[in-house]
Amino acid sequence: MVPRYARPAMTAIWEPEARYRIWFEVEAHATEKLGALGVVPESAARALWDWWATDPVIDVPAIDAIEAVAKHDVIAFLTWVADNVGEQARFMHQGMTSSDVLDTTLAVQLARSSDILLEDLDQLLAAIRRRAEEHKYTPTIGRSHGIHAEPVTFGLKLAQAYAEFDRCKKRLAAAREEIATCAISGAVGTFANIDPAVEEYVAEKMGLAVEPVSTQVIPRDRHAMFFATLAVIAGSIERLAVEIRHLQRTEVLEAEEYFSPGQKGSSAMPHKRNPILTENLTGQARMIRAYALPALENVALWHERDISHSSVERFIGPDACITLDFALARLTGVVDKLLVYPERMRKNMDRMGGLIHSQRVLLALTQAGVSREDAYRLVQRNAMKVWESDGALMLLDLLKADPEVTAALPVDELEDRFDLEYHFKHVDTIFARVFGEAA
Amino acid sequence: MVPRYARPAMTAIWEPEARYRIWFEVEAHATEKLGALGVVPESAARALWDWWATDPVIDVPAIDAIEAVAKHDVIAFLTWVADNVGEQARFMHQGMTSSDVLDTTLAVQLARSSDILLEDLDQLLAAIRRRAEEHKYTPTIGRSHGIHAEPVTFGLKLAQAYAEFDRCKKRLAAAREEIATCAISGAVGTFANIDPAVEEYVAEKMGLAVEPVSTQVIPRDRHAMFFATLAVIAGSIERLAVEIRHLQRTEVLEAEEYFSPGQKGSSAMPHKRNPILTENLTGQARMIRAYALPALENVALWHERDISHSSVERFIGPDACITLDFALARLTGVVDKLLVYPERMRKNMDRMGGLIHSQRVLLALTQAGVSREDAYRLVQRNAMKVWESDGALMLLDLLKADPEVTAALPVDELEDRFDLEYHFKHVDTIFARVFGEAA
Amino acid sequence: MVPRYARPAMTAIWEPEARYRIWFEVEAHATEKLGALGVVPESAARALWDWWATDPVIDVPAIDAIEAVAKHDVIAFLTWVADNVGEQARFMHQGMTSSDVLDTTLAVQLARSSDILLEDLDQLLAAIRRRAEEHKYTPTIGRSHGIHAEPVTFGLKLAQAYAEFDRCKKRLAAAREEIATCAISGAVGTFANIDPAVEEYVAEKMGLAVEPVSTQVIPRDRHAMFFATLAVIAGSIERLAVEIRHLQRTEVLEAEEYFSPGQKGSSAMPHKRNPILTENLTGQARMIRAYALPALENVALWHERDISHSSVERFIGPDACITLDFALARLTGVVDKLLVYPERMRKNMDRMGGLIHSQRVLLALTQAGVSREDAYRLVQRNAMKVWESDGALMLLDLLKADPEVTAALPVDELEDRFDLEYHFKHVDTIFARVFGEAA
Amino acid sequence: MVPRYARPAMTAIWEPEARYRIWFEVEAHATEKLGALGVVPESAARALWDWWATDPVIDVPAIDAIEAVAKHDVIAFLTWVADNVGEQARFMHQGMTSSDVLDTTLAVQLARSSDILLEDLDQLLAAIRRRAEEHKYTPTIGRSHGIHAEPVTFGLKLAQAYAEFDRCKKRLAAAREEIATCAISGAVGTFANIDPAVEEYVAEKMGLAVEPVSTQVIPRDRHAMFFATLAVIAGSIERLAVEIRHLQRTEVLEAEEYFSPGQKGSSAMPHKRNPILTENLTGQARMIRAYALPALENVALWHERDISHSSVERFIGPDACITLDFALARLTGVVDKLLVYPERMRKNMDRMGGLIHSQRVLLALTQAGVSREDAYRLVQRNAMKVWESDGALMLLDLLKADPEVTAALPVDELEDRFDLEYHFKHVDTIFARVFGEAA
Repeated sequence: MVPRYARPAMTAIWEPEARYRIWFEVEAHATEKLGALGVVPESAARALWDWWATDPVIDVPAIDAIEAVAKHDVIAFLTWVADNVGEQARFMHQGMTSSDVLDTTLAVQLARSSDILLEDLDQLLAAIRRRAEEHKYTPTIGRSHGIHAEPVTFGLKLAQAYAEFDRCKKRLAAAREEIATCAISGAVGTFANIDPAVEEYVAEKMGLAVEPVSTQVIPRDRHAMFFATLAVIAGSIERLAVEIRHLQRTEVLEAEEYFSPGQKGSSAMPHKRNPILTENLTGQARMIRAYALPALENVALWHERDISHSSVERFIGPDACITLDFALARLTGVVDKLLVYPERMRKNMDRMGGLIHSQRVLLALTQAGVSREDAYRLVQRNAMKVWESDGALMLLDLLKADPEVTAALPVDELEDRFDLEYHFKHVDTIFARVFGEAA
Repeated sequence: MVPRYARPAMTAIWEPEARYRIWFEVEAHATEKLGALGVVPESAARALWDWWATDPVIDVPAIDAIEAVAKHDVIAFLTWVADNVGEQARFMHQGMTSSDVLDTTLAVQLARSSDILLEDLDQLLAAIRRRAEEHKYTPTIGRSHGIHAEPVTFGLKLAQAYAEFDRCKKRLAAAREEIATCAISGAVGTFANIDPAVEEYVAEKMGLAVEPVSTQVIPRDRHAMFFATLAVIAGSIERLAVEIRHLQRTEVLEAEEYFSPGQKGSSAMPHKRNPILTENLTGQARMIRAYALPALENVALWHERDISHSSVERFIGPDACITLDFALARLTGVVDKLLVYPERMRKNMDRMGGLIHSQRVLLALTQAGVSREDAYRLVQRNAMKVWESDGALMLLDLLKADPEVTAALPVDELEDRFDLEYHFKHVDTIFARVFGEAA
Repeated sequence: MVPRYARPAMTAIWEPEARYRIWFEVEAHATEKLGALGVVPESAARALWDWWATDPVIDVPAIDAIEAVAKHDVIAFLTWVADNVGEQARFMHQGMTSSDVLDTTLAVQLARSSDILLEDLDQLLAAIRRRAEEHKYTPTIGRSHGIHAEPVTFGLKLAQAYAEFDRCKKRLAAAREEIATCAISGAVGTFANIDPAVEEYVAEKMGLAVEPVSTQVIPRDRHAMFFATLAVIAGSIERLAVEIRHLQRTEVLEAEEYFSPGQKGSSAMPHKRNPILTENLTGQARMIRAYALPALENVALWHERDISHSSVERFIGPDACITLDFALARLTGVVDKLLVYPERMRKNMDRMGGLIHSQRVLLALTQAGVSREDAYRLVQRNAMKVWESDGALMLLDLLKADPEVTAALPVDELEDRFDLEYHFKHVDTIFARVFGEAA
Repeated sequence: MVPRYARPAMTAIWEPEARYRIWFEVEAHATEKLGALGVVPESAARALWDWWATDPVIDVPAIDAIEAVAKHDVIAFLTWVADNVGEQARFMHQGMTSSDVLDTTLAVQLARSSDILLEDLDQLLAAIRRRAEEHKYTPTIGRSHGIHAEPVTFGLKLAQAYAEFDRCKKRLAAAREEIATCAISGAVGTFANIDPAVEEYVAEKMGLAVEPVSTQVIPRDRHAMFFATLAVIAGSIERLAVEIRHLQRTEVLEAEEYFSPGQKGSSAMPHKRNPILTENLTGQARMIRAYALPALENVALWHERDISHSSVERFIGPDACITLDFALARLTGVVDKLLVYPERMRKNMDRMGGLIHSQRVLLALTQAGVSREDAYRLVQRNAMKVWESDGALMLLDLLKADPEVTAALPVDELEDRFDLEYHFKHVDTIFARVFGEAA
C-alpha cells in the first residue's frame, strides 16, 4: 500500500483494528449459536457481547505482544479477549480452527471492499454518462492504428467507455458474490467438532453465503477469480487513461486533464501541462494486474491447506483493493473535469484534405457499377496524392478532376459523400443500446 | 500449440479452413441482409450461397498467395471468393470493415471452444462425482501444511474438487456469454455505411449477441475476462494435479495414476511409477495462466483500435483453448482410472500414535471444566512425547497415564475421543450441499 | 509457434529431427568416452558413428510409433537407433538417465537459438546505428508525457535505442553463457553409474560448460534467467515499436513504416497507411514477456526433479525463441526502411510558438538575478497565453512585451534563448559515449 | 510493504527521509560542480553543505504541505530547502530536471538495497555451506517425481542449493551494476542547459556510473532487468522452501523447521508442528515474482518519457527489495537451525525393499551380456513384486531366486550391487566443483 494512492474508507477496512473487530464478531456469533445448541453456556456469548457493547478499544500493540510469544495470531487475539472478558471467554472458538475466523474475515473484508468499488464504479459511470451526453454529437475523428479513419463523436467514445465499465461492474458484482462465503467447519472441514448450524448462523449474521465444502480453508479459486476480475477492471482503466493521454498530446490536444491554478507541470519547463493523472493511472493498472498472478498461484494449496496463500494475501488483499479504489476515484475526477476542445477536434479532422471520406466514395463507385478492385484503385491513386501533400490538396478536388471517377459518379453525387452528418445517423441507436431507450 | 497436447475437435476450430468458413458465413449472411434492405441485389447472396452449397474446398495456399501480395488477409480472402463466385461477389463486404469479419469470427471460435470446454468440464465433473461417491466413506487423513491433522474421507477430497470445478463451469459459462458477440458496425463502429440491422441479422444467424457499441473492434475487456477465466480454471486443474502428485509420493502412496502394461517409468530405474500425467498437467496449468497476461495487456488499444492484439490472439486463441481442452480431458482420465489404496490410507493415518485425535481430547477437557490454556498444555505435553517417538508411543496410553488428565476426564470418556466414525457424521451433509439432496 | 511469425533457421532448431540429431550426438559422444574408459567396448561408439556417417534419415514417425507403446521418448529413440545400428547399440546410454540427454539437448538448442538472436541483435544494432548517424543532427521535438518539451535530434532517439539494444545484447550473451551447460550425471546426479569424465567429454564436444551440480536435471533457475532475459529484450522491442507508432500518428507523422506498392492498408479505407508492423511487434512483445512467467514457476521442482517443467518448455522453448527471432528481424527491417520526414519534424516543433524555449528563458532570468519563483511566474504567465492561443501567439513576442521580463533581460539576450543549435552542442559527446570515440 | 515482512535496515532506505537525503546530496554535488564550472557562484554549494553540516531534521510533513499546493514533489522539496538555506539556494537545480534527481536517487536506493541483498545472500550461502559440510555424507534417498530413485546425501541437496544461490548472487551483482547509473542530462537528455561534467561529478560522488544516454529518464530496461533478476532469486527461494516443506511432511519427516518452546502450531490441534516459515516464503516468492511484471511493462515509456513508471516504482521499489531481504534472512534462519533427522532418512530409504538399487542390477546384467530389453524385463518383473508388497519383499531375495537372473549374474555379484557407499564415490568431486578445491 502506497499512502498517496489510498483513500480512508477503503484503507480502514484493511487496518488491524477492523480485522480484529470482524474476528470478534465471527467468534461471538459462533459462541451465541453454540450456546443455543447447548454446546457451551448461553452466558458465554452474553459475556462477550456485553463487553463488546462497552465499545472497547482494540489494543493492537497488546495483541501483537502476545503474538510475539505465541507466534500465532488468532491464539494471541483470543488470549487478549479472554484477558478482558474473563472466564466466560474460554467457551469461545469451541470446535473451530483459526482458518474459520481468518477466512471468513477475509471474505467480509473483500465483500466490504467490493461494495466500495461498486460505488466507485457507479460514480465513474455517472461521470462518463454525463460527459457522453454532453458530447453526444461533438464530431471528432475516429482513429484506427493511430491514423485518421472516419468521423465519430466524442460522446460515442465515452459511450464505449460506459459500456465497458458497466461490464466491469457486472463482473465485480459476480466476483463479490463468489467471494462472500463463510466457513466454520473445523480442523479439516468435516464439522467433526462443530455443528454446521453454527456456520449457517454466522454466515447469515455476517451477510455471507455458506461455503458448501471447505477444507479448513475457503478454496482459493474464489480469491483467484476475485483478483483476476480486479485485473480486468484495471485493464479498462488503462484503456480510458491511454485514450486521454493520447488526446492530450501536443499535436492532438483534443482534451486535457484539468489543470488547477498553482499547479506546476515541470520544474524546468513552465509551459508544460502534462497528463500526469492518467499516466499515473496507467502505472496503477499495471500493479493491479500484477496482483492477480500470485492469487492464481495460490489456488493449488497442498492437501486440505497450506499457508502459502497467507503472506500473498497480506499484500494483495489491501494493495489491490486500495489501489483500485483510488484509481477508480481518480479516473472519475479526470472524466468529470476533463477539458474538451471541440474546435480542435474539428481542426484535426479537417487536416487530412477530406481523406476520411474516401470509403464513402469507394462505396459509391462500386454501387455505380465499378468493380471493387477498380474502385479501390481509383480512390487510392487520388488519396495517395492528398496524403503526400500533407493536407495541401483536397480529395474532393482531385476526384472531380479524375475523368475515370467522374465517368462513374457525377460531381454532385461525389460532393454528397463528403457530408459529416452522414456518419452520425446511428449515434442515437448506439446511445439507446448503451444507456437504455430513454437516453 | 504443441501437437502432443492437442485434441482434434478443438484443434479443428482453430485451423485456417475453419476460420475461412466462418468468414464466409459472416459475409454471406451480411450480404443476404444487405440484399433484403435493398442495398445490394438479392442475387448477390444467392450466388454466394449457391456456390457454398457445392461444398467448395477452401484453397488455403491460394488465399495465402494472394495475401502475400495484398498484405491483407481479408482482402485476400474476398478476392479468392470473387475468383470463384464471379461478378456477384463484388457486393460482398459492402460498408463493412475487416474487423467486422475478424472479430465476429473470433467470437464464434471462442464460443465453440467454450462449448467443448463446457463438455470437458461435464465429463470431469462426472468422473469426480463417481469416484467421490465410491469413496464417500473411505477414511484418510486430512493434512494441513503437509502435516497430519484430523481424519477426512477420500470422498470429501473429491467433493471439494467437484464443487471447485462446478464453480469453474459457471465461470466459463459466464465468460462464454460475454465473449459471444457480433460486431458489424463498419470502419469506426458508427454504422455510417451499414445498417445496424445487418449486425442484428448476422448475430442471430451465427448464434451471437449484438455488441452494443464497438469501435471497429469488439472491446478487448471481453477477451481479457475470457482468458482470465481460463487461467482460474487452470489453477483448479493444478490443485487437483498437485493433490494426486502428493498422494503418489513413495512415502504416502495413497493413490496412483493408472500404470498401463508396457509402460516404462524410467529408462534407468525400472521400478519407477511416476505421476507424470499430473506433473504434465501442472506445467500446462502454468502455460494457460500465462496466456491471460497478454490478454489483459490487450485491453488498452489505442483510440478506436490498433492491431497489437491480433498477434497475441493468434497465439493465445488456439494455444489456451487447445491446451485447456487437452488438460481437462487428461485430468478426467486420471481421475477416472485413479488407483486408490484405502489400506494404505488407513496405515498412514495410524502411524501417528493417535495424535490426530488430540483436538477432541482438548475439547473434552475444556468441556470438563479445564481452562483452555491448561487443556492445551496437558494435551501438548503428551502429544509431543508421541511425536518424538515417531509412532512408537500411543497418545491414548500416555493420556491414561497422566493423572492431571484423568483427574478431569475418566478413562472411558478418553477412549471415546479416539473413535474415527465421529469425524464422518457430517459427510452426508456436505455431499448433499455439493451434489444435491439426492446424493 | 505461429508459422507467420517464424523464420526457417530458428524454426529448424526446434523441429523433432534437429532434436533427435542432438540426442544422437550426445549419446554417441558419451559412448565414445565410456569406451575410452573401458566401461563399454570401443567398438560401440564406432558402430554408432559409422552409421551416423551414412547420414541416415531420422524417421520421426517410426520413433513416434515406438513411443506410443513405450510411453517414453528417450527409450523410443534408443530403440529406434538400436534397430538401425544393431547389437553394438546396447552399450549406449550406460549409466545415463533420460534427463542427461534431454537437458543437455535443450541447452544446445537454447545456445544455438541464442547465437541466432545475438546475430539478430547485431543486425538490428547496425541498422539503428546507420539511421542514427544519418539523422545525427536532424532536429525534432523531444516529448515528455507526450507533450512537447525541448529539441532533440532524431539521431539521439536512435542512439538511445542503440544503447538499449546493446545492453540487451550483453544480457543475452550472459544468459547464453548461463544456459549452455551439460549434465551427464546419472539417475539423481551422483555419477554413481557414470564417470564425471563422460560429462566433461560430452560438454567439450557439444560446446557446453559442465554443470557443477545437477540433480538428474539441470537446475531451472538457469532457464528462468534465460527466459526472463528474453522478456526484457521484448520490453525494449516494444519501446521502439511504440515510439514509431507514435511518430506515425496522423497528427505527428514524423516517420512512417515503409509502405510497399500493392499494399492495402484497409479493406474499407484506401487512404490508410498504418503502422501495422510495429503494432504487430507490440503484441509479440507481450507474448515473449508472458513466456517468462511459467519459466519462473518452473524453478521450484520437487526434490531432485519432477517433470512439470517439461510441458512448459515444449511451448516456450520454441515459441519464445522463434517469436523473438522474428520480432528482432522485423524490427530491423522497420528501422532499416523507416521513412523519416525531417520537414514535418520541424513543422511540428514550430507549432508551439516557441514554448519549447521557455526553460532557457527561465534560466536566463534566474542568472540575471530574478528569484526562481518569480522567474517561473514570469515565464509561466506568458507561456500560458501562447499555449491557449494554440500556436497563434509567439512566446518571444510576448516576452519582449512584458516589462517585468525585459527589466531583467535585454531583448537581444532574450532572442539568444530561442536558438535551436544551442540544444545540440553535446550530441557529439553522447554519440561518442554510445558508439565509441570514432562515431 | 507489509510491516511483518520488513527489516529495519532495508526499510530505512525506502523511507521518505532517506529519499530526501539522497535528493539533497545529488543537488548539492551538482551545485558544487556548477560552481566549479562558473555557472553558479561557488558560495551556493558552500551554503548548502554548511546547512547540511548542521544535520538538519528532514521535515517531511512540511515538504508534503508544500507539495499539496505545488503538486510537484521536487519543486516542493527545493522550496523547503530554500526556506531553510536562504537566498543561495536559488542556484540549486540549474539546468536540471526533476527526473535527474528522481532517477539518480532511485539508482542509489536500488544500489544500496542490492548491497544489503548481496550480504543477505552471503549469509544464506554461509549457512547452506555449513550445513552441507555437516551432512556431506548423510545418506538420504534422492527422489524424482516424488518417487524414490537412488541414494544421494543430504549434503548434496544443500550443495545444489549453494550453487543455485551462488548463481543468484552473480546475477544480482550484474543487476546492481546495471542499475547503478547517474543521469543529470536536463530536460530531454541533451545536456542543453547543463554540462555533462556535472553528471560525471555527481556520478562519482554518489558511487554510480554515468548513464551514456538518457532521455530525461534513465531507460527502464535497466529496472526491468533488475526486478526480473529479483524474480529469479525468488524462484530459487521457493525451490529450497518447497524442498523443506516436503521433507517435513508427516510421512517423510526427514527435516523440520526449528520449533521454539512456547510456539503453538495450531489453535485446535496441539500436536501440530508445521513448516510455516517455508510456506510463508513460498507466498513471498510469488509476490516478488509478480513485481517483475509491471517493471517489464514500464520499459515502453512514450517518447522521451512519460511518468507511468513512477506509480509502479513507488510500489515495487520498496516492496520487492524489502520482501526479498526479509525472505533471504528468513530462509537463512531456517537453514541455519533446520532440524535434520538422519535416522529417519535411513528408515525411509530402506522402506522400498531395495528397489533403489534396481538400476545397478540392470547395468550389471547388460554388462554381463544380457540385452538391454531383456535386462529391463528381468529387473522390472521382480521390482514390480517388491513394489506391490509395499516393502514386505526384498528385491535382492527375489533376484537371487530368479534363475534367469542368476544365470547371468552370480549371487555375490548381485549382492555387490546393493552397497550404499557405491553411490557416494563422487560426492567429493561435486563438493570441489561447488565449494572449490579446498572444500
